[in-house]
Amino acid sequence: MKPVNVGICGLGTVGSGTFNVLARNQEEISRRAGRVIQVAQIGARRPNPAADTSEIPTTNDIFEVARNPEIDIVVELIGGYDTARELVLEAIANGKHVVTANKALIAEHGNEIFEAAQANNVIVAYEASVAGGIPIVKAIREGLAANSINWVAGIINGTGNFILTEMRDKGRAFEDVLAEAQALGYAEADPTFDVEGIDAAHKLTILSSLAFGVPLQFSKAYTEGISKVTTDDVNYAEELGYRIKHLGVTRRTEEGIELRVHPTLIPEKRLIANVDGVMNAVLVDADAVGPTLYYGAGAGSEATASAVIADLVDTVRVMTADSSNRVPHLAFHPSRLSDLPMLPMDEVETAYYLRMQAIDHPGVLAEVTRILAEQSISIDAIVQHDTTEELVPVVIVTHKVKEAAMNRAISAIEALDSIHGEVTRIRVEALDAQ
Amino acid sequence: MKPVNVGICGLGTVGSGTFNVLARNQEEISRRAGRVIQVAQIGARRPNPAADTSEIPTTNDIFEVARNPEIDIVVELIGGYDTARELVLEAIANGKHVVTANKALIAEHGNEIFEAAQANNVIVAYEASVAGGIPIVKAIREGLAANSINWVAGIINGTGNFILTEMRDKGRAFEDVLAEAQALGYAEADPTFDVEGIDAAHKLTILSSLAFGVPLQFSKAYTEGISKVTTDDVNYAEELGYRIKHLGVTRRTEEGIELRVHPTLIPEKRLIANVDGVMNAVLVDADAVGPTLYYGAGAGSEATASAVIADLVDTVRVMTADSSNRVPHLAFHPSRLSDLPMLPMDEVETAYYLRMQAIDHPGVLAEVTRILAEQSISIDAIVQHDTTEELVPVVIVTHKVKEAAMNRAISAIEALDSIHGEVTRIRVEALDAQ
Repeated sequence: MKPVNVGICGLGTVGSGTFNVLARNQEEISRRAGRVIQVAQIGARRPNPAADTSEIPTTNDIFEVARNPEIDIVVELIGGYDTARELVLEAIANGKHVVTANKALIAEHGNEIFEAAQANNVIVAYEASVAGGIPIVKAIREGLAANSINWVAGIINGTGNFILTEMRDKGRAFEDVLAEAQALGYAEADPTFDVEGIDAAHKLTILSSLAFGVPLQFSKAYTEGISKVTTDDVNYAEELGYRIKHLGVTRRTEEGIELRVHPTLIPEKRLIANVDGVMNAVLVDADAVGPTLYYGAGAGSEATASAVIADLVDTVRVMTADSSNRVPHLAFHPSRLSDLPMLPMDEVETAYYLRMQAIDHPGVLAEVTRILAEQSISIDAIVQHDTTEELVPVVIVTHKVKEAAMNRAISAIEALDSIHGEVTRIRVEALDAQ
Repeated sequence: MKPVNVGICGLGTVGSGTFNVLARNQEEISRRAGRVIQVAQIGARRPNPAADTSEIPTTNDIFEVARNPEIDIVVELIGGYDTARELVLEAIANGKHVVTANKALIAEHGNEIFEAAQANNVIVAYEASVAGGIPIVKAIREGLAANSINWVAGIINGTGNFILTEMRDKGRAFEDVLAEAQALGYAEADPTFDVEGIDAAHKLTILSSLAFGVPLQFSKAYTEGISKVTTDDVNYAEELGYRIKHLGVTRRTEEGIELRVHPTLIPEKRLIANVDGVMNAVLVDADAVGPTLYYGAGAGSEATASAVIADLVDTVRVMTADSSNRVPHLAFHPSRLSDLPMLPMDEVETAYYLRMQAIDHPGVLAEVTRILAEQSISIDAIVQHDTTEELVPVVIVTHKVKEAAMNRAISAIEALDSIHGEVTRIRVEALDAQ
């Protein structure tokens, strides 16, 4: 089947990430989408050293992309309001599907844009506009479609959350952390959009409409920033059992819909109170499913690209649906499943927690550690408490090793005269990202 | 447009929940799906007092539902293997779409069932089969379609997680908590499926295929239960900075795919280590987006029904697509948006954290609390530390009150001679489910 031609407008952080991920994962993405998705044109004023786009036809007039008859899907990544609005409306008028990451555009001009898309029978997809790589638009719009939603609360600005996390963890002042965030590239030179809550209010406006089925109404949002929060407040909150987060809250009440962004105390036992640094999370309370939470990177080049490309795959799946199975049962098209082997457990590598009962005499630990060393198993931690009992519990946490080697070590340890009974073994997973 | 006719087979916990949620949220669900979804037939041996199905034609031969020419979508909620497999294959052969919550069926017979569905051009949807109400199948299959997935790790059996949480929080023994879980209805009379990890392995098998594009291979899963975990292990883990969770892990390595369910130590700082009680969570690590986490109820009547009905809405959206916009832009069809008002901030009710600088003399607190009482604002907590300074910080957490009343109170407090400067006000959200 003929590839789908995508035109990328804007080659900044998200544009270059989208280009790179599409190139790197092209084979897997086409196994999911059922067709190759190729970048056929780029509209950008200048190249971006972060992406090697030298082989792609490039124009510095983005409107050329919206008019190019070869282009099936226009990806709007220029940001801002007026030019982005014109570009998207022109693409729609020319019968092209549109994917955008532009929260300001959707929150402020979404009603007009969706009406044009409906009239022209094209898709306008905007997963990347809210909470970066977290598929929250899809979760609310499709995954929770059974529910009457009570409220949505989100940490949907990574810069603000980074600042509040640093203030709490390190007792630093707001201005001090903001300056560092700007140096690290988390915060813009003009941080108003982030720290005064406007960016979060754009995203919350979109979530509110998705949850409650009302038109987009950004002008009704109440917005309060975090610039007045002091370390005193952070400490008092802690003392009272809370964390301060810059939260967007939209709630359905009998009188109407609440739509508000402001610093908020949240009980520390809530999972969302423990979402730290630049990470985002959205908590949805709905009548059938109860609370569900969605957590991940809310910004960044490839994290946002992940959502842009998910929208591309969705669009291609609709364009290409030759059967009812728009989405393949097992995510990849049936003819494109792979035959990677499942690893036997012996070959799996993890760290281990071992607990054993040792007879309390000198040299036991030396015997055990010798056996581990023979299997090339290195030790991360040992716990051995003083006791007056004859049998002493010994707990060892190891570094990573193959299951087969650990099985041999455990058999050898259990055969020691100085070890009583079986060795308890529980695997350890750090679950750090690769 | 004519309603879509659904036949529900099985009227147990999930069947009755599905019936009830469809009835209760019918109006909202049809605004999302674009058509009314009605239960036209039930196949069940006996009525369930939890659902008033008296007006729905009911048969005790479930195969009648699969053959009924009036039925568009068959919902398989009988559970088990052989009869469920026959029912689903018969429905497919008769050209009906199928929605199922049956993880055992998909994990063990999914390859055969999907092949039949593909050949007959019908949908087989199974969101409810993994992690109950969490839209994790959709997240991986669609939301993360841009990514090469590194690994998936999940707490995907609520019973096991409840037991481990109780062991940790209350120092109780495994057998003791299991007996309580059985009494509460969280665990079956025969708890083998839950505590030995078979149920989790079924779900993990499905997640593995979705993540890596391989056929379902339940027989290759390594499965180890939690019945040997002792309170000693739980305590040592805590001492070492870990939590023990019954985790399903599937990971792509150069040699092949790991597919394993076992008790696992996880660093306590990870969000997933703090998922407690009967809740489920799935953590996905992917190359573009990084780690994302999905949290919610993994079982229960209406939580599972939420996923079943999401699949029904998905199916109806495909059946009814008269345009490219299979899913409405704002989740609800454009003609069915509602005009609920956005509440002005004055009308919004929250609790408040107030911090003020008081001149240290007797009676200040009495003045402040009198003002709060005049606005009917009741106090949850007061913090006032001894100090040798002239100005004493006073922190008050209130119960819920409308913003307008709080604004009046703050103005009055700021006007007091004994209060210096402005009152800092931060809103408090408990974020408990309604």
